[in-house]
Amino acid sequence: MSGLWSNSSSRTMVPMRNNAVAEPVLTLTYGAVDAYPAVMRALSRRILFDLDPAFLAQYEDVNEKARTALRLSNQPVILQGAPTLGVEAAAASLIAAEDTVLNLVNGVYSKGFSRWARRYCKNLVEVEISYDEAFDLNRVESALKDNPGARIVSLCHHETPSGTINPLAEIGKLVAARDGYVIVDAVSSFGGMDIHPEESHSDIFVAAGQKCLGAAPGLALMAVSERAWKKMKANPDAPRGSYLSLLDWENAWSRETRFPSNISVPLIYALDAALDLYLAEGPQAVWARHALTGKVCRAGIRAMGLDLWPVSESIAAPMTTAVRIPQGVVADELYRHLRDHHRIMLPSGAGDTLGKVVHISHMGPSAQPLLAVAAIAALGSSLAACGHPVDLGQGVAAAMKIAEAAR
Amino acid sequence: MSGLWSNSSSRTMVPMRNNAVAEPVLTLTYGAVDAYPAVMRALSRRILFDLDPAFLAQYEDVNEKARTALRLSNQPVILQGAPTLGVEAAAASLIAAEDTVLNLVNGVYSKGFSRWARRYCKNLVEVEISYDEAFDLNRVESALKDNPGARIVSLCHHETPSGTINPLAEIGKLVAARDGYVIVDAVSSFGGMDIHPEESHSDIFVAAGQKCLGAAPGLALMAVSERAWKKMKANPDAPRGSYLSLLDWENAWSRETRFPSNISVPLIYALDAALDLYLAEGPQAVWARHALTGKVCRAGIRAMGLDLWPVSESIAAPMTTAVRIPQGVVADELYRHLRDHHRIMLPSGAGDTLGKVVHISHMGPSAQPLLAVAAIAALGSSLAACGHPVDLGQGVAAAMKIAEAAR
Amino acid sequence: MSGLWSNSSSRTMVPMRNNAVAEPVLTLTYGAVDAYPAVMRALSRRILFDLDPAFLAQYEDVNEKARTALRLSNQPVILQGAPTLGVEAAAASLIAAEDTVLNLVNGVYSKGFSRWARRYCKNLVEVEISYDEAFDLNRVESALKDNPGARIVSLCHHETPSGTINPLAEIGKLVAARDGYVIVDAVSSFGGMDIHPEESHSDIFVAAGQKCLGAAPGLALMAVSERAWKKMKANPDAPRGSYLSLLDWENAWSRETRFPSNISVPLIYALDAALDLYLAEGPQAVWARHALTGKVCRAGIRAMGLDLWPVSESIAAPMTTAVRIPQGVVADELYRHLRDHHRIMLPSGAGDTLGKVVHISHMGPSAQPLLAVAAIAALGSSLAACGHPVDLGQGVAAAMKIAEAAR
Amino acid sequence: MSGLWSNSSSRTMVPMRNNAVAEPVLTLTYGAVDAYPAVMRALSRRILFDLDPAFLAQYEDVNEKARTALRLSNQPVILQGAPTLGVEAAAASLIAAEDTVLNLVNGVYSKGFSRWARRYCKNLVEVEISYDEAFDLNRVESALKDNPGARIVSLCHHETPSGTINPLAEIGKLVAARDGYVIVDAVSSFGGMDIHPEESHSDIFVAAGQKCLGAAPGLALMAVSERAWKKMKANPDAPRGSYLSLLDWENAWSRETRFPSNISVPLIYALDAALDLYLAEGPQAVWARHALTGKVCRAGIRAMGLDLWPVSESIAAPMTTAVRIPQGVVADELYRHLRDHHRIMLPSGAGDTLGKVVHISHMGPSAQPLLAVAAIAALGSSLAACGHPVDLGQGVAAAMKIAEAAR
Repeated sequence: MSGLWSNSSSRTMVPMRNNAVAEPVLTLTYGAVDAYPAVMRALSRRILFDLDPAFLAQYEDVNEKARTALRLSNQPVILQGAPTLGVEAAAASLIAAEDTVLNLVNGVYSKGFSRWARRYCKNLVEVEISYDEAFDLNRVESALKDNPGARIVSLCHHETPSGTINPLAEIGKLVAARDGYVIVDAVSSFGGMDIHPEESHSDIFVAAGQKCLGAAPGLALMAVSERAWKKMKANPDAPRGSYLSLLDWENAWSRETRFPSNISVPLIYALDAALDLYLAEGPQAVWARHALTGKVCRAGIRAMGLDLWPVSESIAAPMTTAVRIPQGVVADELYRHLRDHHRIMLPSGAGDTLGKVVHISHMGPSAQPLLAVAAIAALGSSLAACGHPVDLGQGVAAAMKIAEAAR
Repeated sequence: MSGLWSNSSSRTMVPMRNNAVAEPVLTLTYGAVDAYPAVMRALSRRILFDLDPAFLAQYEDVNEKARTALRLSNQPVILQGAPTLGVEAAAASLIAAEDTVLNLVNGVYSKGFSRWARRYCKNLVEVEISYDEAFDLNRVESALKDNPGARIVSLCHHETPSGTINPLAEIGKLVAARDGYVIVDAVSSFGGMDIHPEESHSDIFVAAGQKCLGAAPGLALMAVSERAWKKMKANPDAPRGSYLSLLDWENAWSRETRFPSNISVPLIYALDAALDLYLAEGPQAVWARHALTGKVCRAGIRAMGLDLWPVSESIAAPMTTAVRIPQGVVADELYRHLRDHHRIMLPSGAGDTLGKVVHISHMGPSAQPLLAVAAIAALGSSLAACGHPVDLGQGVAAAMKIAEAAR
Repeated sequence: MSGLWSNSSSRTMVPMRNNAVAEPVLTLTYGAVDAYPAVMRALSRRILFDLDPAFLAQYEDVNEKARTALRLSNQPVILQGAPTLGVEAAAASLIAAEDTVLNLVNGVYSKGFSRWARRYCKNLVEVEISYDEAFDLNRVESALKDNPGARIVSLCHHETPSGTINPLAEIGKLVAARDGYVIVDAVSSFGGMDIHPEESHSDIFVAAGQKCLGAAPGLALMAVSERAWKKMKANPDAPRGSYLSLLDWENAWSRETRFPSNISVPLIYALDAALDLYLAEGPQAVWARHALTGKVCRAGIRAMGLDLWPVSESIAAPMTTAVRIPQGVVADELYRHLRDHHRIMLPSGAGDTLGKVVHISHMGPSAQPLLAVAAIAALGSSLAACGHPVDLGQGVAAAMKIAEAAR
Repeated sequence: MSGLWSNSSSRTMVPMRNNAVAEPVLTLTYGAVDAYPAVMRALSRRILFDLDPAFLAQYEDVNEKARTALRLSNQPVILQGAPTLGVEAAAASLIAAEDTVLNLVNGVYSKGFSRWARRYCKNLVEVEISYDEAFDLNRVESALKDNPGARIVSLCHHETPSGTINPLAEIGKLVAARDGYVIVDAVSSFGGMDIHPEESHSDIFVAAGQKCLGAAPGLALMAVSERAWKKMKANPDAPRGSYLSLLDWENAWSRETRFPSNISVPLIYALDAALDLYLAEGPQAVWARHALTGKVCRAGIRAMGLDLWPVSESIAAPMTTAVRIPQGVVADELYRHLRDHHRIMLPSGAGDTLGKVVHISHMGPSAQPLLAVAAIAALGSSLAACGHPVDLGQGVAAAMKIAEAAR
């Protein structure tokens, strides 16, 4: 228990850390984000036994709050692992050996899904577009026509390394009309904009606390439609008795059911606190804060003469501003200058966008115009130091103009 | 970042918790344990981006400390999930399709391993003994003789629901002599007694922070021998690009390698703090504290005329005292009385021991004689309330006698 | 701000602490008490500027909650210092140069008040009784008759080093009938039993968060009657523009008034959290928990053949069990054995009771029968080690009997 | 104890907070500052009994660390209250009834000292200059000549509401040459620049943790020279047995001495953590960080065409940039716009500077160029909104230029 002590005093420090590196002043990244203070306090709550009635009651509460936030008619599933566990479990559970999967690829994460889909399906169709674009509906519609046997359509809602948003709700409608199933990775968009599983006809909707909700990393938050549960139960290859299983967790929300594995109690506390904040601030207010910060940031970036990575602002994500690194700038030098000189941590892309993009994220507590402005100033300064001078004053002024007008 | 705020004040509370249940005064359970206070403070540290150089340096540090604690010659692996993920991943990775696995079953957890072993091997041999016993070496030796083709031997070192310890080091020696591989679940013993992977000839040794180390739940801490790495690499069926993969994580300790999935940064902070405490108190001192508390507790239990679940005290685990529930006592009433009336949370067994055993755990911060004494008093009182009067005064007096003599 | 960092990483530890001493396993003391976990989390909230509108609003809230808990018709005063500051400020502010003060002395704290009263009044009358007794009303009534000019009567409600309770409400009534003023130190009783300023006719009632409320030490919580405010304003010697002033703080509760000094923001957060817990659990339930724990503890102490310090159980405080150290036991050895061998921290008295008494406190989170039982076992064992054998088993059994019957 | 619980769950929330106001995104104020994260975690440590040997050892450690940081040859004193308690106690203790005090007034805080000096001395000489200036040595020298009987000289090192620094070391030398005593309020400068009591010939040097050290508010940290101790002991009017006493605390640092009042244990933990950070980062590095941030900020302010409040940059404090509010701007509107629209909390001056100045503070964790830049952008924007347009882009650009060149 928290008040009880080993023989060793907490004040005894072991001087073993030769490895320490100075921490950044600001972290504006997309995964995981620096959490809300209330979340960090929740993490420090005493750790109850996960079968303690007090914890079981709280676990039901958390599920109910998540259900409310997700606007679900059934209970969500919380998996004990990184969001990628959720995506892999979705593939493993929903895709049957005889299925054809249509995977819509416009970025690093959707491309990665192919690996899992291929493992479980008979036939994988990949429709791949440029990673700075989002899917338009005609493209999806024609792909569906060309592949009438595709039972499952998979996509990533917010391709974080690209900072682009796909029209999930509209795609979902097309798939639903053909009686197909949608698996969507909405990990980094849920909680930062108006997107929900049932309204978007998603059958497995993978979200997480550690992005726009500002909770702690380590859980996948999943919505599963009733027809998806049915399909999984009929799938003899769907994992059971496994860490990759969704079926094991169907009723885990209820205090009457034993958990399939130990629960990371502190991460549940964190999710609980983050959902409280989200519902108390009001989802609309949270989305507006993300939208405004994104708008402020894009205005500042463009006023410095820089290009967004997404081909048009209309597909730019409110929660991540992806900036094209100008020609001639060595990406690694830029990232290092930002981190070392200005003490700001910005993400650097991944896979195919690595080295081409620098991001400013606006998720959860970092969705604040003033922080985006600090990032713009730092980015402008570091670009100059890397041989690409820009007018950072103009960038900041343009950003502040949007911020001023806003409220 | 932790100091930055959404539009909603942290003081706005949402009165949505109709579900709250009073918390216990003492939690003396085996999973997860109530962590050390320093661990809980570490959990509340600001969450760095997992690719931030400061975090990458800390991650290397944590691995190095874990290596020291595990007395390893190579780097350990930290999986992002419950310890059961570690055990399943070990089975999935090490067991090849042509292997024969000899599974030594003397409790709920070793029995559970059969499920995973069967999934991956050609031939599973289960040697099952009574769940209140530990394996003796003759038994293991004859099983090995009877199954000369068994390449992999699996066992659970501390069968927690039984409170028994198997002679891992000796069994490991037998297996090593035959050039076999040992997979061992040492989740709830490592850190509480003198057991280490290389000294015990274990090829995959699954430990965790959330038991005797007093860290937070949600990570599997794994030691993998060089020959186990080799066998896995040669195994075409070993998972790759999967949450069940061990191979993906081989070099994850190094800052030069990208993580296969997002890291739960706060859980790493917690493990770091717990390893600091363990190494600062001194492993021998920590083990002695666990051993003493177990001895104190067993003396109290026996002086009340109760039976331990293990057939002999020589196989009783220092970190969990498993008590046989007397005939005539309704187990659920007993658990409920302890929790409701005395506000103490004790584990209730699982699987085949559920309803037959009540446990008092002594792990990490709860390995303190005075806490075991409080549990003895509560257990004595609750047994009386459930129709089985015992002399709790005598129990406490006998326990205190051991505690007095100790230091 | 909490998420922002100096050049030095938090992980850099300075190995300067050669001085560290192992912490206790249990702390059952009377000042300050180990606080509720929620209080400790509140302490770790980011520190707002004390003139920030968000803090000013919270400060009003805290005052209003304290008013509710104190059952006041006007606003309380929170002084920025130890409770003794409150008592000294009460003396300095209320006592005028021409006043006669009747100080009722039955312990260390009331005796100490004489020092302050003497400094400010014309005439101090001390009525002193044995420190193991409480005042009875006849005694007070005759003292009042003997000193018809006494305008101010001072007393300590719970003489903590003695573990005795004075009949404050009845004494208050007598004083009120003579139009006198009561200054009472209720620091260690308020929040643990049914005592409130107006109901007890107290004019200055000094309470604190750090005792039965389970908040953090460093604030004095004061109730001041309207007639006391009036008397102070008329007192030319009452401190103004001083840390000893009460008058400076009269309207500090309001966001419209500037604070006379900087506020210790974290201590206000802690008090806020503690008041939330108190009001949520329900004052009656909190008092009952303290009363039961005291009863359990006294039963255990007596069953071991030990004597309470108070001459009769009827005057024993519910929140502190003061035990007479048996003849032949060297007090310092006893305290040290408890702390070193059993890792339990118990208070040792002060002033005239130092060396004669050992206490087990039951305040706030430590008002739990199971903890008193652990203390009884430890005390019994340590007394034996110090040459005074007792039957601790009988003590614990008697204590548990009360605990069993209770709920 | 921290792990132990009342009957009420921590999750039960009381919906009593109708009063909540949204918190700021950034707090760049001078009192108290938003503390370092490690300080906030230290605040959440379990609260030991202040007479527990583990706490007594830590208290000695903290005093020793403070002695190191203050570069003292004797032990410092920690008073349990706001820094103003320290200043008042200094006046009450050092000034004898026959003393003449020369008070050097160039701001709100030094002016305030007159109130206390007048209370205790025979003769108070106030030398007052404009509040936007610092004292020059000629002025002080002639004042000393004009008042040869002045035994005590008092001043404020960093007049925070003015953002000016007085030449303390040189003044101290002049006073020492005449065998006088210096009382100095160095509350908001110590820890942020190269200033120490003995090097500056200060006899009572009042510092605090809650400013440049980034600790929590509620303690005064005092250095007292040996001759000051001697003078106090000889002073019959120096408070003893009082909250205003310094003498009571002379040996409180030692575990052999009882504390004169209860200690606010969490505030000591916070100071301990802050001193660790200060010594680990290295005093020179900390001062350089403050100096750079001040320089960055002043460059930005001037580039927007704004005036500093101090008459020259040479007397501007590194830790607080005081900006003259332009004519025509309504100060309250400006403060409100900054707080409401940009969610940044900046201090507003006090006393004679209230309404004339807006400050950007750089203390402890907020001494970071990037944060000053965010404040410049916000201030520029809010001034425009209040009718005084400035070129904030130019301000930010100029500030970043200094930041770039720095490291």
